[in-house]
Amino acid sequence: MKNNRRNFIKLSGLTGLGLLGSNFANGVQRIQKQNEVINSPGHSDNQIFNMCGYAAPKLDVVRAGFIGLGMRGPEHLKNMSLLEGVEIKALCDIRPRFAEQAGNSLKGTSHKPDIYSGTMDAWKKMCDRNDIDLIFIATPWDMHAPMAVYAMEHGKHVCIEVPAAITLDECWQLVETSEKTKQHCMMMENCCYDFFELLTLNMARQGFFGEIVHGEGAYIHNLLDLNFDKNGYWEMWRLRENIHRNGNLYPTHGLGPICQIMDINRGDKLVSLESRSGKDFLMGPTAKKLASADNFFAPYAEASYRGNMNVTNISTHKGRTIMIQHDVTSPNVYSRIHRITGTKGTALKYPLPPKISNGGEDWISDKEMKELEIKYQPPILKKVGELAKEVGGHGGMDFLMDWRTVDCLRNGLPLDQDVYDAALWSSVSPLSEASVANKSRTVEIPDFTRGSWKTNNPVDILLEKGGTTKTKLKS
Amino acid sequence: MKNNRRNFIKLSGLTGLGLLGSNFANGVQRIQKQNEVINSPGHSDNQIFNMCGYAAPKLDVVRAGFIGLGMRGPEHLKNMSLLEGVEIKALCDIRPRFAEQAGNSLKGTSHKPDIYSGTMDAWKKMCDRNDIDLIFIATPWDMHAPMAVYAMEHGKHVCIEVPAAITLDECWQLVETSEKTKQHCMMMENCCYDFFELLTLNMARQGFFGEIVHGEGAYIHNLLDLNFDKNGYWEMWRLRENIHRNGNLYPTHGLGPICQIMDINRGDKLVSLESRSGKDFLMGPTAKKLASADNFFAPYAEASYRGNMNVTNISTHKGRTIMIQHDVTSPNVYSRIHRITGTKGTALKYPLPPKISNGGEDWISDKEMKELEIKYQPPILKKVGELAKEVGGHGGMDFLMDWRTVDCLRNGLPLDQDVYDAALWSSVSPLSEASVANKSRTVEIPDFTRGSWKTNNPVDILLEKGGTTKTKLKS
Repeated sequence: MKNNRRNFIKLSGLTGLGLLGSNFANGVQRIQKQNEVINSPGHSDNQIFNMCGYAAPKLDVVRAGFIGLGMRGPEHLKNMSLLEGVEIKALCDIRPRFAEQAGNSLKGTSHKPDIYSGTMDAWKKMCDRNDIDLIFIATPWDMHAPMAVYAMEHGKHVCIEVPAAITLDECWQLVETSEKTKQHCMMMENCCYDFFELLTLNMARQGFFGEIVHGEGAYIHNLLDLNFDKNGYWEMWRLRENIHRNGNLYPTHGLGPICQIMDINRGDKLVSLESRSGKDFLMGPTAKKLASADNFFAPYAEASYRGNMNVTNISTHKGRTIMIQHDVTSPNVYSRIHRITGTKGTALKYPLPPKISNGGEDWISDKEMKELEIKYQPPILKKVGELAKEVGGHGGMDFLMDWRTVDCLRNGLPLDQDVYDAALWSSVSPLSEASVANKSRTVEIPDFTRGSWKTNNPVDILLEKGGTTKTKLKS
Repeated sequence: MKNNRRNFIKLSGLTGLGLLGSNFANGVQRIQKQNEVINSPGHSDNQIFNMCGYAAPKLDVVRAGFIGLGMRGPEHLKNMSLLEGVEIKALCDIRPRFAEQAGNSLKGTSHKPDIYSGTMDAWKKMCDRNDIDLIFIATPWDMHAPMAVYAMEHGKHVCIEVPAAITLDECWQLVETSEKTKQHCMMMENCCYDFFELLTLNMARQGFFGEIVHGEGAYIHNLLDLNFDKNGYWEMWRLRENIHRNGNLYPTHGLGPICQIMDINRGDKLVSLESRSGKDFLMGPTAKKLASADNFFAPYAEASYRGNMNVTNISTHKGRTIMIQHDVTSPNVYSRIHRITGTKGTALKYPLPPKISNGGEDWISDKEMKELEIKYQPPILKKVGELAKEVGGHGGMDFLMDWRTVDCLRNGLPLDQDVYDAALWSSVSPLSEASVANKSRTVEIPDFTRGSWKTNNPVDILLEKGGTTKTKLKS
């Protein structure tokens, strides 16, 4: 680790304690891996076990532990604490204050979690326990895969925040560990549960759009101030991701819902991509400006940053196209685009409000939209939509995702996002980095399913088939 | 020609008289050129003469001739016939009926044009005359450059419909011929004159968006029925373009306004691109369906077509990014996107209505938009905007462009789009074809200005500097 850290600092031209504080600044390894990606032979040619459609044994009570309680962790914790059949057993954050705050948030409930904190390995002790079924991981991106692999190897299902992995090797580790241990490895891509995304998935299934031709997604979200917030992400990890990497660092919000609509890994597959990044126009100048008033930012003022905009183009085996954008520094209005073009119609979520066309020259009217929302209402929203809105969390989608995950585990149903989805959607990051590093060269996308995409069944996220509503709120 | 035609038919797998009717089906040449593009040495390294900012001698009266009077020609003819200081001298279309109809449309005016028609070379006779100053060219795409070169060599300025050229070699021919003859070669990119495009250009000039970071444009327009209309484009030329070419065939509507906002060729330049096309989902099935009822379409049912969606990513010398899309077959709602992202704000025209953000988390209100439209109203719209709206033509932009072109010629001012713009914006077609043909490989974009982009002055399309309003409507 020491050596990696030194090389990272050399490579990114950074000095100073602010960057030495990190124990997982494995920038060098990553950059080396990027250059290997293009000619990567991939990992095992055959599945050990097909985790797509896999249903683990039913759990009457889901005993959960949480690693990382800064930004996203507390949201999942809150949702889980509300559900019957869930027991919060343990909470972990390297910062004692965050772990304690999370514990305090459960006061007055039936949950009495143990607290793990203060050391870099505290989370391992939590994973070593035998009375936990499911681990939520909401830590810095480069800890997601190592923690998930360790947890699965210790007999835990894992729910990982996006992205599940940041190198191609990590993607393969997740796949092979999940297959070997038969533990679920679900990436918590909450945008798959957003209401318009579910609506368009249902419409696509019912044939409204005809054959799907093209899709677009994005993560366009101005996080400039948040990334430079000294009191924000732990040891400025998210800002540092933008120093030693250049590509689409956060593809899954845009890509996930499009892949579900195109039945990717379940009838079609992603084949290749190329990616282009512009120059940095804002992170460097912001760092310099902050450093002039606060020496804390001095090392950041010396760094060079990934560009504002990244555009990645993907093709599928069936010849469909997907465009994914990433810009978290320009002063844009938030957008995930979510555009679907089919042979009979089209949908576009952003800029809000969402729009639908049935193939005519204009969008359908508000009245027609309302009729359509009723006609194509996904069963999952019919059953749990109102409850999700009441509980909230990104408009309800976070609760919907957590509820659905618990309900599947308790009923012995496959989870909506399997390890192949986690690996594939996350792999667009290192693949786009490899493309950008090689003048936007086309890069092949691995088939993490090793051929089972041809016969895997479509995801049942809409609850068309096996969904239940057994799990209620705690009374 | 005979040999080319035979090879074309062989290559595209087509037989039958429907396709033999064309005298310029030079598909083979084009495909060969695509494969040469990537390693193309380019043409002359030095300018013969810098046509950027060039003002030709004043013309009190602009004597105009028109080639091609099917779709776009009559629109320009109407506008030109309304302007004082314009004399319509000649009209040409290979189809006698179209040439006569155009002549009839001028009955009752002072214009008494001669009619040229009936042979493939009729247009040359028109260009050979000595009493014409300006030739409008609105013919099939692959005749644009040959006709323009011939006309310039015969002492005529040319106004060419988009795209000005379809091969890289043609782009260079236009550049070198314009420089050699000192004749204007203006591509009639009317979208540069659309009101929101002009507004955002003015806002960019005034610094509203800060430094420009990223731009997007598109031609997303469902032309499926039009392309398969037996009574539409002459000898189905536009449908046939989609058979033997695969890339962005029509980039200039989206690209032109973005390039003007980024001062491309005049302070910045385009450097490289890569391009990705999906599969054809609609042209082939449409051809087969039509052929089952009408033998005319039999050869088209055998063809393979370019894909529905093409996405092209471009970088500029200053590190800005541009994304350009092309889809003319999917049932989309019309869009040219026209997205501008700067370090201080952003604009997005499509989906309509247009939106502006001043860097905040949401778009500005309708009220703020109205205030901003007044504050940043471009001088050209202040002076001629109302008149343009009255005359009409794509909401006024067509008239505005024709008026401005005549006014510049009569006042000895540089035209708004010079031959370098025509060549560059059009070159994205053959360059995208080369990229698509080579698995989306990155392709360098030629510098048609041969270095003068560093010192060329910004275009005065807004009438900030030299614009006049001398030219009125004919009384």
